[in-house]
Amino acid sequence: MSDSHREDPPTGVVNLAAKFELLPGPWQPHVVAELNDVQFKVARVEGDFVWHEHEETDEAFLVVEGRLHIDLPDRTVTLGAGELFVVPKGVRHRPRAPGGARIVLVEPRGVVNTGEDRNELTAPNDRWI
Amino acid sequence: MSDSHREDPPTGVVNLAAKFELLPGPWQPHVVAELNDVQFKVARVEGDFVWHEHEETDEAFLVVEGRLHIDLPDRTVTLGAGELFVVPKGVRHRPRAPGGARIVLVEPRGVVNTGEDRNELTAPNDRWI
Repeated sequence: MSDSHREDPPTGVVNLAAKFELLPGPWQPHVVAELNDVQFKVARVEGDFVWHEHEETDEAFLVVEGRLHIDLPDRTVTLGAGELFVVPKGVRHRPRAPGGARIVLVEPRGVVNTGEDRNELTAPNDRWI
Repeated sequence: MSDSHREDPPTGVVNLAAKFELLPGPWQPHVVAELNDVQFKVARVEGDFVWHEHEETDEAFLVVEGRLHIDLPDRTVTLGAGELFVVPKGVRHRPRAPGGARIVLVEPRGVVNTGEDRNELTAPNDRWI
């Protein structure tokens, strides 16, 4: 476990439940695996995130536990455990989890959680756990 | 649901459990979502697959149900539900699931399940479900 960039990614089995336990707090995604230039990140989420978008990439959300709402410009989608949703590139979205959720994010290396905006919820984007 | 290539990927929520029920048989991965050029595929697996490798890409395995063994040249890793493993590019591997498993594969569009070899287990690689 390290908060620094890992030049040599681990090649072991990643147990998601164990990784969630290591997270320091909500809305702080940490990388657990890489597939080429795409990263798998775990995050605990609770309450409302901020509206944002990613101009250069799609972003996938997989819910492992709890319920996640993703507000989109024209609708809201709701994901339970075992459900996956891909927010298309450039589409504004706001994740929300009133009751809390544990999720896996899949997105290319270098994506900032708050998109083009930087604010108090902006997290370092290349921390491994 | 369609077996043909989908030019316009669906933008709905993907329920993995429901997708597994639609699969025609074991070792027949079907695409359920795309993140840029990376595809999420669901597959039911049972028994031994063949040794193969992917020269151009890593390949991620996420087990949703059951147990999956992945034989590697120097070791075997075993994944249970909620566990993820990335087979690095160019590394020979053989997935095995004596008791059956339901898995999600994550890999770039165009990857053939049997790698460089073509045999009776080779499946079309761009079928959506």
